[in-house]
Amino acid sequence: MRPKPPVNGQTVADVGEFGLIRRVISGRAQPASTVLGPGDDAAVVAAADGRVVASTDVLVEGVHFRLDWSSPEQVGRKAVAVNLADIAAMGAVPTGVLVGLACPGRTEASMIEALAAGMWQEAARARVGLVGGDMASTGTGDVMMISISALGDLRGRAPVTRGGALPGDIVAVCGRLGWAAAGLAVLGRGFRSPVSVVNAHRNPEPPYEAGPQAAEAGATAMIDVSDGLLADLEHLAEASGIAIDVRTDLLTVDQKLVDVATALGADSMHWVLTGGEDHALAATFPEPAAVPDGWTAIGTVTRGRAVTVDGKPYEGPAGWQHWR
Amino acid sequence: MRPKPPVNGQTVADVGEFGLIRRVISGRAQPASTVLGPGDDAAVVAAADGRVVASTDVLVEGVHFRLDWSSPEQVGRKAVAVNLADIAAMGAVPTGVLVGLACPGRTEASMIEALAAGMWQEAARARVGLVGGDMASTGTGDVMMISISALGDLRGRAPVTRGGALPGDIVAVCGRLGWAAAGLAVLGRGFRSPVSVVNAHRNPEPPYEAGPQAAEAGATAMIDVSDGLLADLEHLAEASGIAIDVRTDLLTVDQKLVDVATALGADSMHWVLTGGEDHALAATFPEPAAVPDGWTAIGTVTRGRAVTVDGKPYEGPAGWQHWR
Repeated sequence: MRPKPPVNGQTVADVGEFGLIRRVISGRAQPASTVLGPGDDAAVVAAADGRVVASTDVLVEGVHFRLDWSSPEQVGRKAVAVNLADIAAMGAVPTGVLVGLACPGRTEASMIEALAAGMWQEAARARVGLVGGDMASTGTGDVMMISISALGDLRGRAPVTRGGALPGDIVAVCGRLGWAAAGLAVLGRGFRSPVSVVNAHRNPEPPYEAGPQAAEAGATAMIDVSDGLLADLEHLAEASGIAIDVRTDLLTVDQKLVDVATALGADSMHWVLTGGEDHALAATFPEPAAVPDGWTAIGTVTRGRAVTVDGKPYEGPAGWQHWR
Repeated sequence: MRPKPPVNGQTVADVGEFGLIRRVISGRAQPASTVLGPGDDAAVVAAADGRVVASTDVLVEGVHFRLDWSSPEQVGRKAVAVNLADIAAMGAVPTGVLVGLACPGRTEASMIEALAAGMWQEAARARVGLVGGDMASTGTGDVMMISISALGDLRGRAPVTRGGALPGDIVAVCGRLGWAAAGLAVLGRGFRSPVSVVNAHRNPEPPYEAGPQAAEAGATAMIDVSDGLLADLEHLAEASGIAIDVRTDLLTVDQKLVDVATALGADSMHWVLTGGEDHALAATFPEPAAVPDGWTAIGTVTRGRAVTVDGKPYEGPAGWQHWR
C-alpha cells in the first residue's frame, strides 16, 4: 500500500506532534557539520574551534510576523534569518539551527510544513542544518510563537563583540537599511507593491558572509541591525563606551525607497536611520583601509557616549523596543 | 541620586525589554564554560570536545505549566530542568542555557524576575550559566511561552542515542517515575498536599550526572522520560529496532505514591509506567554488571518491536503527545 497522501485542511491536531515532526524533517539533507540531526533527545553539531557561538530569538505572530502579510515560507525564512544574523554579527560562521514552535491545534498542518520549508530554504542559504527542535500546543492560546536558536563557529578568531570600538574607528555597514521598514509601511497602508520593497520586509537577506569577513579584516566591534541603525549603534556605543557620528551623505538611499517614501508622504532617510529588521551588519574598523569590499563607511567613532547624525542628536524615535 | 527602587505591580510594559533584561542578568555569576555571557548579539560557550550537544524545548502556559499551581520560580526551574535532562540523556555534561520568553505587556515585572531566579537556581544546580536569551511581547496573545535551548559537552565520548540498544541488553532507570503524574493528579483534584508529591510535579529534579555516568559505563542507548516510561521506551525501541519488556516487580513504587493513589482512587503503577515530566533517565546496558550505582534494572531488551509489561501489551494510554 502506498502511504496516504496528505489531506487538504488537516490540522496539526489531526496529524499529531510526532507525525508533524516526521513530515518536516523527512528527506532533508544535513551538512557535514551536523554530527547528529533531529530525532533524538538532542542534536550534536561540530564545534571544531573548541567554542560555540549561540543565540536565541523569539518571533510572535501579530508582533513579528503576520500571516496575512507574509506566506508561511517567508515567515520561516525570516525566523531563521534573523537569528543567523546574530551569529554572523559575532564574526562567526553559522553551523546549525534549532526550532521551537508553539501553535494552536486548529493550525493547518500544511501551513507548518510550508513554514518549515522556508526554514530549510534559509538554512540552506547559510549552509547549515536544522538540527533539532520541539513542537507544542498553545492550548487555549491562539497566537503562534516561533523560537529559533542558532549555533556558529568562530574559526579560531576572537568573537567580535559590541564592546571593542575605539575613538578614531570607522563605522561601516553591509546589507540593506530601511528596506524592511519601507515594506512594512507599504503593507500597513494596505498595498502589496512594489514587490521588491514588500519582500524586503517579508524576506530579510542578512549578509551572513560579511560577518566573518569583517572579523578577518580586524573589525573592533559589530552588531546586527535588528532594531534600527541608530538604536543598534547606540547599543554598540554604550557597550564600547564611545560616541558615533553617522553622516547622511555617506548613506546611499536607493531610488526605490525615495519613490515609495514620496508616494506615502514618508521620509526615506528616516527609514534608513531607524528601520529595523533588514539585519544588515554594522561594524567598526580601525582605519578606512580595513573596511572590506561590500561594506560602506557611514561614520566615525569619537570620544563621548551619544550617537549623532551629521553632528546633531537625531530627532524622533530611534528604534524598536518590546512592550514600549 | 540612588536608583529608583522597583515599584510593586510594575508591568513588563512599564520596565521595557532592555530594563527587564538588565534586571534578570545583573549580579549573576557565570561558570568558566561561559566564554561570553548575555548582552551581545550571541553568547560564546566552551566546547572543548570539538562538538556541541544542543536541544530546544518549548513550554506554554496552561499546557506545560500553570501559574496558579506553581510559583514563577518553580516554572523557571522546571523550564531549565526539562531541557538539561535532554542534554544528560545524550551522555553529555550541560554547559549553558539560552532562554526565549514571550509574555503579555501586562505581566508583572516581578513575576518575570522570579521566573528568571528559578532558571538561575536550576542552572546553578547543573553548574551551567544562563548565557543568553530574548524577550518579546505576545501582542494580543495572553499566554506566556518559554523556550529553552541547552548546550552540552560530550567530553570526548560518543553521544548515547536512542538507537543503539541490542537484544540481551538490560533496561535501567535513574530518577523518579510517576511522582510528577501523582502531583498533577493531586493538583487536578484541587489539593495542595502531600507537598513532596506536588513538588515533584512543580520541580522535577533530573539526575543530570547520571547521563554522563551511564555513557561512561557503556550505555548502548538512552532517553529522558518526559512523555512517560512506556512512551519513551517505545521511542527508544523504535529507534533501536528492538523490543523491551518491563518487569513491574523490579519497579519500586514509593509508599507515598501508593498512599496518594489509594486516596484518589488511582493506580500508582499506572503513574510509574505512563507518567511523564519526572525526567528520569532510561538507558540500556550490555550486561547487568554494567548498570551503574544509582540506576535500577527494570527490564530487558529482546528481538521484536513492541514494549511490553510483564510480557504483555500494556492496556491504556502510554503517554503524552501534543494536540492529541
